[in-house]
Amino acid sequence: MSKSVLPDKSTHFADWYQQVIYKADLIDHSPSRGSMVIKPYGFALWERIVAYLDEQIKRELKTPNCYFPLLIPEEFITREKKHVEGFSPELAVVTHAGGKELEERLVIRPTSETIVYHMFSKWIKSWRDLPYKINQWANVVRWEMRSRPFLRTTEFLWQEGHTAHSSKEEALEMVKAALGVYISCLESVAAVPVFSGQKPDSEKFAGAESTSTVEGIMPDGKALQMCTSHLLSPSFPASFDVSYQDEDGKQKTPWCTSWGMTTRVIGAIVMTHGDNRGLVIPPRLAPIQVVILPIIKSSDNKDEIIRISTGILDVLLHAGIRAQLDERDALTPGEKFFEWETKGVPLRIELGAREIEKQEVVLVMRHIQDRFEAKSSVPLAGIESQVKQSLLKIHTDMHAKASKVKESKTHDVSTFENIASLMQADKGMIRTGWCGQVSCEKQLSDISVTIRCCLTSKSQELSSCFYCKGVSAGDIYVAQAY
Amino acid sequence: MSKSVLPDKSTHFADWYQQVIYKADLIDHSPSRGSMVIKPYGFALWERIVAYLDEQIKRELKTPNCYFPLLIPEEFITREKKHVEGFSPELAVVTHAGGKELEERLVIRPTSETIVYHMFSKWIKSWRDLPYKINQWANVVRWEMRSRPFLRTTEFLWQEGHTAHSSKEEALEMVKAALGVYISCLESVAAVPVFSGQKPDSEKFAGAESTSTVEGIMPDGKALQMCTSHLLSPSFPASFDVSYQDEDGKQKTPWCTSWGMTTRVIGAIVMTHGDNRGLVIPPRLAPIQVVILPIIKSSDNKDEIIRISTGILDVLLHAGIRAQLDERDALTPGEKFFEWETKGVPLRIELGAREIEKQEVVLVMRHIQDRFEAKSSVPLAGIESQVKQSLLKIHTDMHAKASKVKESKTHDVSTFENIASLMQADKGMIRTGWCGQVSCEKQLSDISVTIRCCLTSKSQELSSCFYCKGVSAGDIYVAQAY
Repeated sequence: MSKSVLPDKSTHFADWYQQVIYKADLIDHSPSRGSMVIKPYGFALWERIVAYLDEQIKRELKTPNCYFPLLIPEEFITREKKHVEGFSPELAVVTHAGGKELEERLVIRPTSETIVYHMFSKWIKSWRDLPYKINQWANVVRWEMRSRPFLRTTEFLWQEGHTAHSSKEEALEMVKAALGVYISCLESVAAVPVFSGQKPDSEKFAGAESTSTVEGIMPDGKALQMCTSHLLSPSFPASFDVSYQDEDGKQKTPWCTSWGMTTRVIGAIVMTHGDNRGLVIPPRLAPIQVVILPIIKSSDNKDEIIRISTGILDVLLHAGIRAQLDERDALTPGEKFFEWETKGVPLRIELGAREIEKQEVVLVMRHIQDRFEAKSSVPLAGIESQVKQSLLKIHTDMHAKASKVKESKTHDVSTFENIASLMQADKGMIRTGWCGQVSCEKQLSDISVTIRCCLTSKSQELSSCFYCKGVSAGDIYVAQAY
Repeated sequence: MSKSVLPDKSTHFADWYQQVIYKADLIDHSPSRGSMVIKPYGFALWERIVAYLDEQIKRELKTPNCYFPLLIPEEFITREKKHVEGFSPELAVVTHAGGKELEERLVIRPTSETIVYHMFSKWIKSWRDLPYKINQWANVVRWEMRSRPFLRTTEFLWQEGHTAHSSKEEALEMVKAALGVYISCLESVAAVPVFSGQKPDSEKFAGAESTSTVEGIMPDGKALQMCTSHLLSPSFPASFDVSYQDEDGKQKTPWCTSWGMTTRVIGAIVMTHGDNRGLVIPPRLAPIQVVILPIIKSSDNKDEIIRISTGILDVLLHAGIRAQLDERDALTPGEKFFEWETKGVPLRIELGAREIEKQEVVLVMRHIQDRFEAKSSVPLAGIESQVKQSLLKIHTDMHAKASKVKESKTHDVSTFENIASLMQADKGMIRTGWCGQVSCEKQLSDISVTIRCCLTSKSQELSSCFYCKGVSAGDIYVAQAY
């Protein structure tokens, strides 16, 4: 790892992001336009997110996994009018296969509602079959003109849940439950504080009756949509002849939902927590939670230091902590510090001859900026409980710190002029009032701002629309967005 | 689940296979030609295989996961002469994306050596970087004229491991180690007994110096290739400029390997273990290892039977056993038996008022044909250890039974005429001698037979070539193949 310094995160955010993901070895450039190669360290982070979500989707959402084909007949996409409008510009189309031109063109799935509903029409016959729930972990392709690693890539990895219900209420409960799982993943696991609410009609998923969203505010003051959960328009399943016989004997269209979280969330984690020294990975997602660094001088008893370090490793692994021992001889301790700091390993254990004499080790917490404050000496005995406590503290600290940033970047603003001037300066997530009219919403595009989400609540001090000054229908969050 | 009877496995094997996978709810037909939709029960089986292999690949093969793009520049495929010959007829090509015709056509990965080596050329610089190992779990597309669920589908799921080494010996060790993991997965987890050896040149992977294979013999006497592990021709990485500076200062091409196992293995499990009543899933892979069926008559104390059944469920789940309680009221016990037998759940627990009075339950083992022998009454107390023992016994029995079938279908035959007549009758895996000449091998195609693998050993009684009667270079296995 080259020891070059990162751009300053506070002054050169975009450059900082672009460099830190490569320096930390998360990804590499791909020869396929708009894609990326996810390297082992980046993929291990994704694997942790998958493990958490997969367990929650199965247990909390009671939704099992399955697998639908990558290639979808192009005709499917055209069936739902809004869906085709939304996705046509982004499709990758297979026209030739097996050495021949295909009679029927196939698209690479940009999302799977169409093929899922085709199957639902076979699987769902009676009210007894409902709710019908499935999830899949898959790759999808959406052709992007301008790609950015993790945030916007032509191919990305995600899970997509699809469910069908007999009532709108139950479907809306499902939409909410999925959102709840995402919020808990972001807040309690990734330590990323969030906003959530409903998208305005202009920002809904192509084919949805309503779209709920979870958004974050990034350190550069721009909002990042991190996941969505949709109630589909009944016309969507209906266009694939999905229907069931209800208890009353009548044929009805079920209410469907879909919800997804993608590799984009890794971008959110990098941006939220990283600093000028590199990544800072939240402990619950860290592929390596603790790295053990033996500090060996030429006069030291190397074998003893390694023996005790290995003992610590065994104790930590046995306690279910993802620990690693860095025994590499070719690197100096300074080079190792640099590497593990760049990679954002939450906790470092250092021990040399002096520590062994005192029967203690040095713990260094990655998230604390001050290098002196970050360090503490703790007894070797009971190291595993000390490490567990530290990891807990790191998560709590990281969430608290990110929440402070979130607060500092969230503003109540009641006029368009003030929104516009904030967007010239610090940006951020702006809470304001909105009458609900598209004509007012459209004014925001002049200042490159969109409604990120609409709340059901209404603040007293934001009782009128930011633009027309009419009565507000409810608070909204607006921001520039990724 | 409709209660229609399956075709007889022994007399109508192909029909039986085609029906059992649908009736057991593993998959459904897909609207995308040559693909299949893997339903939750089928996917749960794949998830168990993935969990085992993923852990082994990380721990035993010390190979981490990563992710390479789905779409590969078409030009990459053409760089290695043998590779392009092998894969061109099977490629699916993206010619249009984002509403435009692409300047550079992209192929959907049929396998990822080309893009992996493109990246290896950036990642591998010095002997210190070797061995370099990565694995990915991915979907791949190979256009198939005739598809068969699991066995041959246009899109399939797999893992593909790719490694680079400084010596041929080390690379061959890697090829062998990967094969070892596959064999242990098949024998010790899937209870499928195997053959293994090297492919003749005619059957090697397109671009390989040598290909090792694991094959099974199916009940219809046809061989199924279940996974392969390759040593690549040095020209393959060289055509992507993969090279490293060795300790002696010289620039060298590393020796590369690749190895993969696919969703095809599910087909092998179905064919090997299933019977006329449906699937029989080996316990270590079973998504549901034990199903608990409360048998309730109208005069019974339903609450008590359900309470005790739920208690058993809790005890089994707590013991780490994948158990499920079937409380559905709408189905009769007979309908439930039928469903769980079709789905091949290895162990069924039945309990009604009579069992509760005697403080015992009835265990029914799915793999035993005789319905009387399959049943035993065991005490309710200590049920978890009884269940664990039974699952162990079921695995052992299933492997022993499959090994017997394998033995009965394996024959030593020394002449072409006798091979030909066996292929007219029972088929099977035939061990014979071969001089190593292509002219003799070619004779086999007349009787639709191929060399499945070559052994390094040589039996005394098979010392001459099956065709030319020249000196045998070593034993081979030949068979008709899927």
